[in-house]
Amino acid sequence: MAEVLKVSSDSKPKAVAGALAAVLREHGRAELQAIGAGAVNQAVKAIAITRGFVAPNGIDLIAIPAFTKVEIDGEERTAIRFLVQAR
Amino acid sequence: MAEVLKVSSDSKPKAVAGALAAVLREHGRAELQAIGAGAVNQAVKAIAITRGFVAPNGIDLIAIPAFTKVEIDGEERTAIRFLVQAR
Repeated sequence: MAEVLKVSSDSKPKAVAGALAAVLREHGRAELQAIGAGAVNQAVKAIAITRGFVAPNGIDLIAIPAFTKVEIDGEERTAIRFLVQAR
Repeated sequence: MAEVLKVSSDSKPKAVAGALAAVLREHGRAELQAIGAGAVNQAVKAIAITRGFVAPNGIDLIAIPAFTKVEIDGEERTAIRFLVQAR
């Protein structure tokens, strides 16, 4: 299974992009999980930045967003998961 | 060129998804443009919903996010563009 990187609204997109590129190099795919608009925005920026990191290796990175349910402090929340992989 | 659908933080993801599916049916690809975290979040939700709309037609929809500059009221803003197409 792909590794899941949790992104928050405080996450630095460039730092997430570095982590994402590392997971992609090892596993060929990765997942980002974000809860809330601020976190989703940082995740999207990270994916755009990562595209630039891996493009020189001939990798055309794509994202597949999906809804998922997660439990946080006993409460069910809707999160966005991005499956990130080479096209 | 693909049609560009502008998404705002007030956009209803399901309505955007309907418009997106219509553009995809006609052109095979589409672009969403969003400025700000709220708008990006609605755009991502719309893409996830649209995946469900087109999946029964055997289409595995993917998104490619990219930064772009747009001018609004004479000010330069950074927007996110999502290229949306079948894999």
